[in-house]
Amino acid sequence: MARDDGGGGAQRGERGGGAARPPGRRCGGGAGMTATADVDIALAVLRRGRDTVTPALRAAVARLDRASREQAAYHLGWIELDGTPGHGGGKAVRPALALLSAAAAGAPVQAGLPGAVAVELVHNFSLLHDDLMDGDTERRHRRTVWAHWGAPAAILTGDALLALAVEVLLEGGSPHAAPAARLLAATTRELIRGQAEDVAFERRSDVGVEECLSMAAGKTASLLATSAAIGSVLAGAPVGLTATLQTYGTELGMAFQLVDDLLGIWGDPAVTGKPVLSDLRSRKKSLPVTYAVHHGGTAGRELARWLAGAGEDGEAQLRRAAALVEDGGGRDWAAAEARRRIALGEKALAGADLPDGPRAELVALGRYLVDREF
Amino acid sequence: MARDDGGGGAQRGERGGGAARPPGRRCGGGAGMTATADVDIALAVLRRGRDTVTPALRAAVARLDRASREQAAYHLGWIELDGTPGHGGGKAVRPALALLSAAAAGAPVQAGLPGAVAVELVHNFSLLHDDLMDGDTERRHRRTVWAHWGAPAAILTGDALLALAVEVLLEGGSPHAAPAARLLAATTRELIRGQAEDVAFERRSDVGVEECLSMAAGKTASLLATSAAIGSVLAGAPVGLTATLQTYGTELGMAFQLVDDLLGIWGDPAVTGKPVLSDLRSRKKSLPVTYAVHHGGTAGRELARWLAGAGEDGEAQLRRAAALVEDGGGRDWAAAEARRRIALGEKALAGADLPDGPRAELVALGRYLVDREF
Repeated sequence: MARDDGGGGAQRGERGGGAARPPGRRCGGGAGMTATADVDIALAVLRRGRDTVTPALRAAVARLDRASREQAAYHLGWIELDGTPGHGGGKAVRPALALLSAAAAGAPVQAGLPGAVAVELVHNFSLLHDDLMDGDTERRHRRTVWAHWGAPAAILTGDALLALAVEVLLEGGSPHAAPAARLLAATTRELIRGQAEDVAFERRSDVGVEECLSMAAGKTASLLATSAAIGSVLAGAPVGLTATLQTYGTELGMAFQLVDDLLGIWGDPAVTGKPVLSDLRSRKKSLPVTYAVHHGGTAGRELARWLAGAGEDGEAQLRRAAALVEDGGGRDWAAAEARRRIALGEKALAGADLPDGPRAELVALGRYLVDREF
Repeated sequence: MARDDGGGGAQRGERGGGAARPPGRRCGGGAGMTATADVDIALAVLRRGRDTVTPALRAAVARLDRASREQAAYHLGWIELDGTPGHGGGKAVRPALALLSAAAAGAPVQAGLPGAVAVELVHNFSLLHDDLMDGDTERRHRRTVWAHWGAPAAILTGDALLALAVEVLLEGGSPHAAPAARLLAATTRELIRGQAEDVAFERRSDVGVEECLSMAAGKTASLLATSAAIGSVLAGAPVGLTATLQTYGTELGMAFQLVDDLLGIWGDPAVTGKPVLSDLRSRKKSLPVTYAVHHGGTAGRELARWLAGAGEDGEAQLRRAAALVEDGGGRDWAAAEARRRIALGEKALAGADLPDGPRAELVALGRYLVDREF
């Protein structure tokens, strides 16, 4: 399953902040780390991001050829297959980060707008191609583009979104557009490296924790890092500030992936939108699984044998596999590592010279994203 | 079959220029238009282009992730599947045009180098994805990347080449790199539009000549137009000169496609590297076929009925179909239209303010490319 940040995140948060969750069943900055005030800030940042970026994103997509335009509008949740209006897209985390990063450089959030549109386009380019490569026929309970229109449609619409991202960024009029586009292109190659490794891992039985972390750095953290910095590049910020924002985005991205992997095993299907124990069903070599295989003693060895097997598992077998990941220390390690990563990111921000408002918003958004229920 | 300019072109030309071919069996500027001197100029321009661009292209590809790097090196003809050295790549028409366009703006050809590398990368991005979409298992008698490594490999390596093209262009250091990258991104979307139409045409029986020309403009002419202009953009040429070079590249591209379609029916398999009557075997709605269907009277109607059929044809049926395209005027029209297009391009160049050397080289290269045997 290709990386995504879900469509119902804002709603989930709005349902009750973090306060009602049992302690010890959250993986962000620790139980109770995300105060209600942080949740409110994060939701406001996400709402502002969506409100700011959506008109520009729609204008950009409107310039695509007819087929790509229709498929992109469906993929982005703006229309349904029968042409009726859709229920909207995802949380738009990356655009929100891009806008915040302009504010972090002391510029108006609008200065980050071309970057915000561009990172969202690149994110969706990768989702369209990944769904096809992974053979996923559904995303958020809707048919994927390749499953409905065929493989060429997903390939071409993805390609078109990638090219459009570069155009949008360079048209923005910033004198710093060229370095921003160069950063985005290099990030795209990192994204591709991560996906290539993910595909290769499926055929291998000897994937190590370091390799798995490197894959996540490419597939998930690289675009979040660039999202958290591209607005500062467009605003002409000093390289030191941009590097700090990239560090924050990288750590946030790694924490986000660790949490996502925990949710892939122990997430509530009603919340994640995926079947229960979904990552185990596909024998995915996720981070907690890989950790338990290599550091989990007897439980890890039994887990490795199960992982090397084939065929469909029953509910009992999947529950047994989940218990092995837990007994092998994979669950605790991933939760602790997510906390450690987000703390590292926050430490980098704390030491940097940026206005207090954007700093607090970046921290609140990061905590909100990694403090999901699982 | 995705657009390509073949690997043996230079060798073909070197075999004897145009002098030995029977008159009336050439589609360029008319029989005898390409003098031996023109052929020599064109071959020297192509050789210089390859010599200049190859080291930079190799350095760019070396930066890709391991899997993409290996697949790209194989696709580009630098290595074989067993790791032994390959027999080299294609003619590198697009890089040669890009370098010439810098010279046309009065700059050193080196000023066009980042553009030359970038257009070659975009061209090969499109070939990798098109081979997969078209289901072609061979290109120039070699297995295609998707056929050997699987669909994800072709998707990801293509994606990586597209991102790399943007990086290379923006790293070149030209103060005009941003508009050049913007032009390349817009061109990529045109390329995608053309391929999307090509895919859609396969399922339709009512494709008109204008639609077919528009498809060719996207799929073939757009990148040749940008190749013939991008060096001038990087050199900071006046917009008028860049527009003229784009016009020349567009007309050259249309002529090139018309000739390619003629070769797809009447080309010598020993020269084209494709089976005899190959485009008819796949019932391709190429330009001469589409013209004959719509303007070919009785022959056109019989051709349309054959086109709507299915199943594999014998040699006799294919020869009959080729005769119907000819009787329906498709062959003569395509040859005349190719001549008209290249003449239009040359007229645009003749009226523009550029140095005589690059102008003569552009004309010679164009004539050489459309004056192929068929």
